[in-house]
Amino acid sequence: MEDSIFEIGAFMDANRAWMKSFAWGGLDVRPKQRLAVLTCMDSRYTAQGILGLELGDAHVIRNAGGRVTDDAIRSLVLSAHALGTRGCVLIHHSKCGLYGNSNDAIYTMVKDATGADASGIDFLPFTDLEGSVREDMRQLAECNLLPEDYQVLGFTYDVDTGLLVEVKLDS
Amino acid sequence: MEDSIFEIGAFMDANRAWMKSFAWGGLDVRPKQRLAVLTCMDSRYTAQGILGLELGDAHVIRNAGGRVTDDAIRSLVLSAHALGTRGCVLIHHSKCGLYGNSNDAIYTMVKDATGADASGIDFLPFTDLEGSVREDMRQLAECNLLPEDYQVLGFTYDVDTGLLVEVKLDS
Repeated sequence: MEDSIFEIGAFMDANRAWMKSFAWGGLDVRPKQRLAVLTCMDSRYTAQGILGLELGDAHVIRNAGGRVTDDAIRSLVLSAHALGTRGCVLIHHSKCGLYGNSNDAIYTMVKDATGADASGIDFLPFTDLEGSVREDMRQLAECNLLPEDYQVLGFTYDVDTGLLVEVKLDS
Repeated sequence: MEDSIFEIGAFMDANRAWMKSFAWGGLDVRPKQRLAVLTCMDSRYTAQGILGLELGDAHVIRNAGGRVTDDAIRSLVLSAHALGTRGCVLIHHSKCGLYGNSNDAIYTMVKDATGADASGIDFLPFTDLEGSVREDMRQLAECNLLPEDYQVLGFTYDVDTGLLVEVKLDS
């Protein structure tokens, strides 16, 4: 059997420290700030860190790019209607693995590594950071499955400076 | 214009503190521990907190339930082939908004609130917490778009105690 890549002992040590911290104690399933954040899976930041959110404040949905996909909609609709959130903060970031990438380049990588054909997947690469935020804000604004008064706030995040900049839908 | 639900001033204050912290400085786009975490959007824990991960260590993918959806696969495939990750830690948790829920109940909530028909969406509710972890571990193990030696580690997380418990695929 091959060696595990996972540091399971370290995970268990961290979990014991987490349990003792009681940081998670007494929080409700319904987010306190009644909001959801949709952002990228990128390892270099957390939604909580860059927005100053505490445990219990907000749902955090993350995928490659922070894109508004069918699955992000599934999550946001459940978040709003079953768990009381009323808006979404959407954040895309600079130097994303999807920025300047292309589906064809990714299909080739997958084919070369596995032999499998990934051409059924749109990986949602983009070349205009603010443009991708606006495109996705528009999708949320137009989604009839979200509450009529649902609010959307968009940002770009710069991984080199740590700066958030608001993106307006109408500019 | 209606009042914003977002505490934008607080977000900007937090962002300035984040920038000064330099916590994000000099990190690479490729996760250091070469792993991805897939877990729920739940507000009461972070993947970093319960596993002891640092910024830069791992991609974090979050959706309603932490389910293996097409979009989670899109993210994990990009994470593995474009950004060098070699395995995924999958975590589902107790008292999830999807636990014991049903698609029909969610369709009714959406219909009542918006008038819209959400019946095209499978919200992926579940009634067996360990079972849903195993089902999703199996999907990852069988996904031919991921590297052949891709590793998968599964956990349940208890929101009342903070405890992670490993779930084995073959038990």
